[in-house]
Amino acid sequence: MSEFNPPVADIEFLLNEVFNLPQQWANNPILAERVDADTASAMLAECAKLSRDMIAPFSREADEQGCSFSEGKVTTAKGHKAAYQALSEGGWGGLTGNPDFGALGMPKALAVHCEEMFASADLSFSLFPMLTAGACLALNEHGSDELKQQYLPKMYSGEWAGSMCLTEPHAGSDLGIIRSKATAQDDGSYAISGTKIFITGGEHDLTDNIIHLVLAKLPDAPAGPKGISMFLVPKILNNGQANKLSCGSIEHKMGIKASPTCVMNFDGATGYLVGQENRGLMAMFTMMNYERVGVGIQGIGPAERSYQCAAQYARERLQGRRKGVSPDQAESLLVHPDVRRMLFTMRAFTEAGRCFSTYTANLLDITKFSDDEQAKQQAAEQVALLTPIVKGFCTDRGLETCVLGQQVLGGHGFIREWGQEQLVRDVRITQIYEGTNGIQAMDLLGRKVAPNQGASVAHLIAEAQQFADSATLTTEMKSALLAACQQLQECTQYIVEQGSPELIGATAVYYQDLIGYVIFAYMWAKMAAAANSDSELHRNKRTIAQFYYSNLLPRIDSLKLQIMADHSALMAMEEAAF
Amino acid sequence: MSEFNPPVADIEFLLNEVFNLPQQWANNPILAERVDADTASAMLAECAKLSRDMIAPFSREADEQGCSFSEGKVTTAKGHKAAYQALSEGGWGGLTGNPDFGALGMPKALAVHCEEMFASADLSFSLFPMLTAGACLALNEHGSDELKQQYLPKMYSGEWAGSMCLTEPHAGSDLGIIRSKATAQDDGSYAISGTKIFITGGEHDLTDNIIHLVLAKLPDAPAGPKGISMFLVPKILNNGQANKLSCGSIEHKMGIKASPTCVMNFDGATGYLVGQENRGLMAMFTMMNYERVGVGIQGIGPAERSYQCAAQYARERLQGRRKGVSPDQAESLLVHPDVRRMLFTMRAFTEAGRCFSTYTANLLDITKFSDDEQAKQQAAEQVALLTPIVKGFCTDRGLETCVLGQQVLGGHGFIREWGQEQLVRDVRITQIYEGTNGIQAMDLLGRKVAPNQGASVAHLIAEAQQFADSATLTTEMKSALLAACQQLQECTQYIVEQGSPELIGATAVYYQDLIGYVIFAYMWAKMAAAANSDSELHRNKRTIAQFYYSNLLPRIDSLKLQIMADHSALMAMEEAAF
Repeated sequence: MSEFNPPVADIEFLLNEVFNLPQQWANNPILAERVDADTASAMLAECAKLSRDMIAPFSREADEQGCSFSEGKVTTAKGHKAAYQALSEGGWGGLTGNPDFGALGMPKALAVHCEEMFASADLSFSLFPMLTAGACLALNEHGSDELKQQYLPKMYSGEWAGSMCLTEPHAGSDLGIIRSKATAQDDGSYAISGTKIFITGGEHDLTDNIIHLVLAKLPDAPAGPKGISMFLVPKILNNGQANKLSCGSIEHKMGIKASPTCVMNFDGATGYLVGQENRGLMAMFTMMNYERVGVGIQGIGPAERSYQCAAQYARERLQGRRKGVSPDQAESLLVHPDVRRMLFTMRAFTEAGRCFSTYTANLLDITKFSDDEQAKQQAAEQVALLTPIVKGFCTDRGLETCVLGQQVLGGHGFIREWGQEQLVRDVRITQIYEGTNGIQAMDLLGRKVAPNQGASVAHLIAEAQQFADSATLTTEMKSALLAACQQLQECTQYIVEQGSPELIGATAVYYQDLIGYVIFAYMWAKMAAAANSDSELHRNKRTIAQFYYSNLLPRIDSLKLQIMADHSALMAMEEAAF
Repeated sequence: MSEFNPPVADIEFLLNEVFNLPQQWANNPILAERVDADTASAMLAECAKLSRDMIAPFSREADEQGCSFSEGKVTTAKGHKAAYQALSEGGWGGLTGNPDFGALGMPKALAVHCEEMFASADLSFSLFPMLTAGACLALNEHGSDELKQQYLPKMYSGEWAGSMCLTEPHAGSDLGIIRSKATAQDDGSYAISGTKIFITGGEHDLTDNIIHLVLAKLPDAPAGPKGISMFLVPKILNNGQANKLSCGSIEHKMGIKASPTCVMNFDGATGYLVGQENRGLMAMFTMMNYERVGVGIQGIGPAERSYQCAAQYARERLQGRRKGVSPDQAESLLVHPDVRRMLFTMRAFTEAGRCFSTYTANLLDITKFSDDEQAKQQAAEQVALLTPIVKGFCTDRGLETCVLGQQVLGGHGFIREWGQEQLVRDVRITQIYEGTNGIQAMDLLGRKVAPNQGASVAHLIAEAQQFADSATLTTEMKSALLAACQQLQECTQYIVEQGSPELIGATAVYYQDLIGYVIFAYMWAKMAAAANSDSELHRNKRTIAQFYYSNLLPRIDSLKLQIMADHSALMAMEEAAF
């Protein structure tokens, strides 16, 4: 695997020049005490060092070695223990957590960049802290004070890890039909029984204890999603005894091979209710916005690394030549416009994705830290709209980018040596887990757009239009952004007016792509406007922005036609004909 | 890996109803003696049996086991020896070869379907007969009678295998700069020295001998591609002695793990000139049309298998429900329009790809078997145009299809069990080898379209327009096909008129996609017109055709904008900025 050079200059351009976040932080009473431009810069540098020196160098070996399973125990790949220790000692396990329990309480708009660097360095490894952070988030939001006191400090510090146990063999995206059972015990705890599959980090040897958050049903629970409760089920109980749970096996997967994907068996394990009975799915959903943004970032991290590798290869590999050059004189791959097209496309997606994740994370920060209730409410609505797009669109572009990166290397991209094939295998999971991208698209269109008659989208469009009208943009970019907004507006209105579940289902993925490309156009306009000097970084930003507008934004024209197409064939075919 | 059910009914629909090939064969003096509808049907049934029962069942195990290398020897995966023996005994090694040397001389329009079935069953395994057939083709076309007598019979029978040794560490797509040397010996043979990489089937244990076709340069050869000669270099010489060549190692790859990709070292190995000195690349190119069509088919085979697996999963998996159905009652995935959209897209691409490969193979048959010189010439021009499209477009759609098939299964698509992840890993190579798809696109636009001012494309468009005007199509389909032809015409004219190498390079991939989608529209029109009864097969063909026209053909609108976009940003960025 090629070296990883964390894109710190690019990140600081976003934080300081595009979004001017230090100013926002300074104006917020909570964040003003915690972070400023210098703190952010120091943290990014430290995270870059950790990612580059402690995690990235082992990513290929970890993939080859994978995790191993024997008699209920999972052994992680070489290098992961040391990296995990360094990560914990650096306090990265509590980056955004609650300071009352020892975490740092940093804004998400800063944390997304650390998460992205970890994902670039080794997606498998990055899942350990991510899952723990997710469990902490749910616990901090919904757990009793007693549970928080007992568990959060050791989870933030990295001494203990966390896992999320949702999926069952017959119930993946359809959590309403889970069968795991919870029975109340006399001491106020619950006995949890059932089998969970696809549990990332369900068992491993990095920590002494693993705190599972498990969805299960109480005996008298209503049918469907309204009968699900959430329980905290530790691997090791407070008295030091092993809880009645075990890892039955780990999956053999296409990628993220150094992350153990476990079958977890709960056999009357002791658990503690988190939040209210039958409100487990609600509790889970409040944290899902964070998790899904996190998975969207996982599409960007590997894409960045793929770009760096492809760019290096293209600079150094001598192959072919421009017209007129002697046939025995080979030139760098960068003389070929098609190679540049691939590299430009990769950068256009990766840099816009990073900008979009920053934008969305900052909205999440407003919902969490602002003292202006109206601003909080508005931000929450926008976050609800944008989250499935960050997850679905950024990971779809993540695969596209990594496949392009592999393609730049030709046959050398298909063999292990350069690491491109691993990035493709790793990033592929991001389109699948935490709700497949098809489900994200249905969530977007069916729950976030159609029910409010497109009001959230209208807000986004108005903001982008206002930006187009007020910012310093080229005439071409201004009119292209306004036209793109218009297309999005027309498609939204078309679907909202028709409104049938069949139409929403048939067009959801097209619509997710459409709004994604329009948002990336808005992000590129923001970046182009901020890149107003003659520095190399600014010049390159303007160049890639121009490429995005001329070569990639036109994809929306087909998507509009696809949305407005006749979809009657789809449901006409009988099931037996498939 | 799920079972493979060869799509024989679909193939016979193409042969008999869409293209009416038995009639064409009957009218050809050579083919009339070799093949008719019954022979074809019997051969397809036999090939289906072999693929389904002898090859497909081992594909997953073969992938897991891979090939192993020790002390210069390659051991193939379990099951491959028995499958290879069955394949050889069935005469499949000489399917399209020269009957003068014991082969069957079947038309390519029949053979493509056998090749596709092998590729569905196990892409790795299918490369063994494919490479041998490729070597036979070059040898039959360019070798001396003596060489043909000596080698062809045993290669057709499967007793000996073949390999093509082109790539070198520093020379992949740029064969003009190869360094392998050939020195004339007193006995008329040559001593060959050099290192070749990425040699599929360069060494293995399936046959006693492997016949390598090696590109090398004579001492006084001109620089560049005009100084390359082709040599036949057997692993074992006629006197039974081992030749001076060896396999140095095999690659560790993303996929096709059961196909050995070898580093081959030639250390003064004895070789025999094939064709004329310094005309080796020409000799190679005459067979490349066949090979590239073959690789295009390799995009379709795994896609077919991916569809079958996804359709089976979608029928059987109960997850989610339509609006109004009780929350504890799960329905099949097929109630979800988005799942159907994915499955329809897969079928639309796979079935059109199969139709297109048949169409192109039939043109190849005309070039080979026709006694009408003008028809031969015309067919050859069309084949030259279509070949890079079959290779590039069908394999790009092959990856897209397999990724969709994996997506239908959600998390179950990412683990090994169902085989979807293997299909993605396997099919990925088809976009890379035998000339990357970017190179195919450059070949298409730079060599087949621009130099003749779009004449070959005009011919294709005229044919499709004539079909639209004369066949029985719905009004919508007729006008959509004519409009698509018009778009292709405009884009071709635009590029031909501008004509700069930069524009050709910047738009080649967009253009390849554009013409690919228009050709698939033409293919779907052909299939829809032939599907004129109320049989289930015919009804389904019409349904998928309608879906292709409404949901997939609209992709050309964006491609047109991308072609006509401003591409000036691309070459403006300095190399150091990548």
